[in-house]
Amino acid sequence: MDKDKLFLITELEGFAPEIGRLVSMMNYARYTTLATVQGLSMRQLDYVHDANSNSIGDLLLHMAAVELGYQLETFYGREPNAEEIEKWQAPFDLGDLGREQIRGKELEYYLHELSEMRKVTLEEFRRRDDSWLYEETPFWRDKPANNYFKWFHVFEDEINHRGQIRWLRQRAIQYEPE
Amino acid sequence: MDKDKLFLITELEGFAPEIGRLVSMMNYARYTTLATVQGLSMRQLDYVHDANSNSIGDLLLHMAAVELGYQLETFYGREPNAEEIEKWQAPFDLGDLGREQIRGKELEYYLHELSEMRKVTLEEFRRRDDSWLYEETPFWRDKPANNYFKWFHVFEDEINHRGQIRWLRQRAIQYEPE
Repeated sequence: MDKDKLFLITELEGFAPEIGRLVSMMNYARYTTLATVQGLSMRQLDYVHDANSNSIGDLLLHMAAVELGYQLETFYGREPNAEEIEKWQAPFDLGDLGREQIRGKELEYYLHELSEMRKVTLEEFRRRDDSWLYEETPFWRDKPANNYFKWFHVFEDEINHRGQIRWLRQRAIQYEPE
Repeated sequence: MDKDKLFLITELEGFAPEIGRLVSMMNYARYTTLATVQGLSMRQLDYVHDANSNSIGDLLLHMAAVELGYQLETFYGREPNAEEIEKWQAPFDLGDLGREQIRGKELEYYLHELSEMRKVTLEEFRRRDDSWLYEETPFWRDKPANNYFKWFHVFEDEINHRGQIRWLRQRAIQYEPE
């Protein structure tokens, strides 16, 4: 990610032109996610605001889980296998199971998972051309969705949860000071 | 907004090709914002979770205020005038002033403001070609930003706050039932 190009939606070397624009947006979204969680401790990552609230750790792992889901959907056209379900179902669902299982990890753990998942996405993007972005399948409510939309949704979901993390971070820092 | 094309990032009739893709993303973001606030009462729109929290009404008007800011920046190249500052500074800043001033309005008020602001954006988009998207100016931290990035940021900020609204909605409905 070139920090001098952070505010440019543009073609990127190594990617087809439209894919480069998509990656520009994903890069900026990720940059802001990382800025939002910088310096958080394990206790702050585990902070649960109320009974229905996800921790910041939950939300970070959810971002990687969603990305895996769309890798399977758009690159490989398959369902998750047993091993993937074991590791990723809870953060994907963001329910009680996640609240129980995703705890006691340092920030580095989440950053590593996000980074490893993103590496695969970018490798696969490099191999594709722009026409792939416009391939359509029946999707939500059986309406057509193209691959561009599906990856837009990946960063759109990340931004949605980053907004929640910004809100939670203020409270986590207040109630779980170091 | 064509609901059968909601999950397609694609060219749109009446817009230059790249602007059409941008509008596709803005359309989906707006669709989800509207779905998130559907049916909320005045009391729920005014619900304030804690001393540092914005109401859902604040956040909705903030979206329109940000859109105005980027209209001025990218279409007209001017600062807001006195009248615009009077109406829009508080929701733009999302601070204490917003919490005091933005209250006692029904959902229709916010939806109308959002819709009127968006109309202007789309009219201006229709008049422009794709090369305009890539015009750059020095921006945050004096780094270059193009118009595509600035409008990406408009919907990116909307999605960020929609994430917060989703979180607040659950609590507003619980604590301010009709």
